[in-house]
Amino acid sequence: KVNGARLWESLMEMAKVGPGVAGGNNRQALSDADGEARKLFKSWCEEAGATVGVDKMGSMFAMIPGTDPDAAPVYMGSHLDTQPTGGKYDGVYGVLGGLEVLRSIKDMGIKTRHPIVVTNWTNEEGSRFAPAMLASGVFAGLHTLDFAYDRTDADGLRFGDELARIGWIGDEDVGTRKIHAMFELHIEQGPILEADNLDIGVVTHCQGLWWLQVTLTGKDAHTGSTPMAMRKNTGLGMARMIELVQTIAMDAQPNAVGGVGQINVYPNSRNVVPGKSVFTIDFRTADPAKLDAMRARFETEAPAIADALDISIEIEPVGHVDPVTFDPALVERVRGAAARLGYSHRDMVSGAGHDACWISKIAPTTMVFCPCVDGLSHNEAEEITPDWATKGADVLMHAVLETAII
Amino acid sequence: KVNGARLWESLMEMAKVGPGVAGGNNRQALSDADGEARKLFKSWCEEAGATVGVDKMGSMFAMIPGTDPDAAPVYMGSHLDTQPTGGKYDGVYGVLGGLEVLRSIKDMGIKTRHPIVVTNWTNEEGSRFAPAMLASGVFAGLHTLDFAYDRTDADGLRFGDELARIGWIGDEDVGTRKIHAMFELHIEQGPILEADNLDIGVVTHCQGLWWLQVTLTGKDAHTGSTPMAMRKNTGLGMARMIELVQTIAMDAQPNAVGGVGQINVYPNSRNVVPGKSVFTIDFRTADPAKLDAMRARFETEAPAIADALDISIEIEPVGHVDPVTFDPALVERVRGAAARLGYSHRDMVSGAGHDACWISKIAPTTMVFCPCVDGLSHNEAEEITPDWATKGADVLMHAVLETAII
Ligand SMILES: NC(=O)NCCC(=O)O
Ligand SMILES: NC(=O)NCCC(=O)O
Repeated sequence: KVNGARLWESLMEMAKVGPGVAGGNNRQALSDADGEARKLFKSWCEEAGATVGVDKMGSMFAMIPGTDPDAAPVYMGSHLDTQPTGGKYDGVYGVLGGLEVLRSIKDMGIKTRHPIVVTNWTNEEGSRFAPAMLASGVFAGLHTLDFAYDRTDADGLRFGDELARIGWIGDEDVGTRKIHAMFELHIEQGPILEADNLDIGVVTHCQGLWWLQVTLTGKDAHTGSTPMAMRKNTGLGMARMIELVQTIAMDAQPNAVGGVGQINVYPNSRNVVPGKSVFTIDFRTADPAKLDAMRARFETEAPAIADALDISIEIEPVGHVDPVTFDPALVERVRGAAARLGYSHRDMVSGAGHDACWISKIAPTTMVFCPCVDGLSHNEAEEITPDWATKGADVLMHAVLETAII
Repeated sequence: KVNGARLWESLMEMAKVGPGVAGGNNRQALSDADGEARKLFKSWCEEAGATVGVDKMGSMFAMIPGTDPDAAPVYMGSHLDTQPTGGKYDGVYGVLGGLEVLRSIKDMGIKTRHPIVVTNWTNEEGSRFAPAMLASGVFAGLHTLDFAYDRTDADGLRFGDELARIGWIGDEDVGTRKIHAMFELHIEQGPILEADNLDIGVVTHCQGLWWLQVTLTGKDAHTGSTPMAMRKNTGLGMARMIELVQTIAMDAQPNAVGGVGQINVYPNSRNVVPGKSVFTIDFRTADPAKLDAMRARFETEAPAIADALDISIEIEPVGHVDPVTFDPALVERVRGAAARLGYSHRDMVSGAGHDACWISKIAPTTMVFCPCVDGLSHNEAEEITPDWATKGADVLMHAVLETAII
């Protein structure tokens, strides 16, 4: 078993880097705080005897060698970046849980045939730079390095420039490392495990997603002196489309979600009818046909809403992940580890996207979930218990060792 | 008649201060550009032989003396601040039209019994610091100076601090000046005069308004892993309330408007259900009972929308102007001046609020409108013709002289 107290201490220490305003974290990708978190993580890895490589996307790979020089490594890890009002565990738990496994293996003097690596994937959240899971996406060949470097944040700052600014452009070409298998440990970010009073989620699938960005263009006009019939009101158009997204998601029940997270209206003044509104849509489900149907229905019905208001609409896809089926042999290894350790568990589908989703395209991959309080995530109040954290890392260690020894 | 070419030149010169991004202006109240515009206006007034006083709200009063030392002045003027994406004429035309009247009176060597004053009222727009017409409101005793100084903008900057920062806190106590009469010249900001092919709007009334600020509080949550039924989605609540505002306005037809101009959701991230949304409502009509009924209906129906989504709602009134009836004698003087000059005209109700609305509470007041292209205002593309501008200033001069001589 891992050293749960040491894992918890590291989680609390890391949470001091880029604190939020309500007990969580604001450590967005490529911020100064992200740079600081990387330094701290690197120092911990080196203390644990690992060698840290960095690729051109800034992803970090902390490796301890195996006994067979020809064997590809077994990977753990997740991400250290957070939402603007994020929690202390989303991503961080998977990175520091992996680090704790390295430390425990060292403590126990265990030697494995395969090397073992803990990864910190850059820009998983996608809130500052869309799309999410950007660095693992480049690693898996979904995106080019140029595409990634050209992503811009809301202030127009480029991903490539910001990565250089914080000093974390590494020398490794992205995606050249061999992967024997990858296990990502993560909090569930949903309510199921806690509600069922279970220790471990054995993740068999992950929902796919479509992210759309919608731009409505009408006409800035005075709210007082412009008659109702003369308005080209993009704020009203947006309101009707938010309702449409809700309807599409409800009609797609069960096991589907849809929502609008980012909204910006222009000029955003009390007495101006907004002449421009930009908002983002997030549709998800594990059924590929249903997922595409949700997007298609929005694309079919939204233009009529715009027409009725005499405004124009542009819909741009800004993120897409196919629904994922994780590697059955690795899934079975996680299930077996939980059973062997006597931890209650169930199979489940990940509601959120993860770096593991992209890596599953190029190597056997799966995930381990621990519960989180109230299913709350992407919220500073995100919480887990030290006991949950320890059990998840125990299962991770068993599954990884079983995979790395043979 | 005034010198229309000189008036137009001044309008174009002022438009260079705080340019917008699309041909208009971004010269928000108490910005550096506002400070620069004040300096330019002051230098023009002094060239025209006027003495410029400034009160503790930063409002500027450029006076030429009358022949009777006991006679109270006749006022003209409007405001030099603009919307974030404002036009070159909203407010500015009334200030520089007044200045042109001063210049023309000087050119013609006319002496009046009453002094004549051109005013630049501070923070008319209310887009940076709510409420609108703030300085004229303090002048008329609607607000205290402390209330005004404590208004904050979206970045939390205080009105009082920003006024000091740009160096325009004057030494006059606010509201101590005597006013014999006030005439505000302004662009219509609506489509009626242009549609009717008329030169002049004789403004008999002004719509009243209620500005409400609504804050919805739910719970930040992951858009992917939070089941639809577990969301406390303030963005969806806001969407439904924007639709409610529209319904209330449409049910109040004719001669009423309602809309939402400012929208901010938090944390404003693609994959977070917004746990907080803040937006503003603007209801207007000239009928006092209807105006209050619009507000009351929103306050009655919105809480049910919030309840159904398990979110909380707070509704704060942030601006109110009673519908105004302008002084019949001054209105008749404007109507007579237009007729005498042979300019086509009609009586009308102002759709927008104006400093004249507040001053009407303490002194005889009215307004003169000129047409604007497409009724467009609060838009960088706001446009008027030099001919319209000249005719409006001609009518202003005649009405002012008639009032100032006797
Ligand atoms: N796990 C997680 O929150 N990833 C961010 C991408 C997503 O929204 O699913
Ligand atoms: N005239 C004008 O646009 N004033 C600003 C206050 C309002 O919204 O009516």
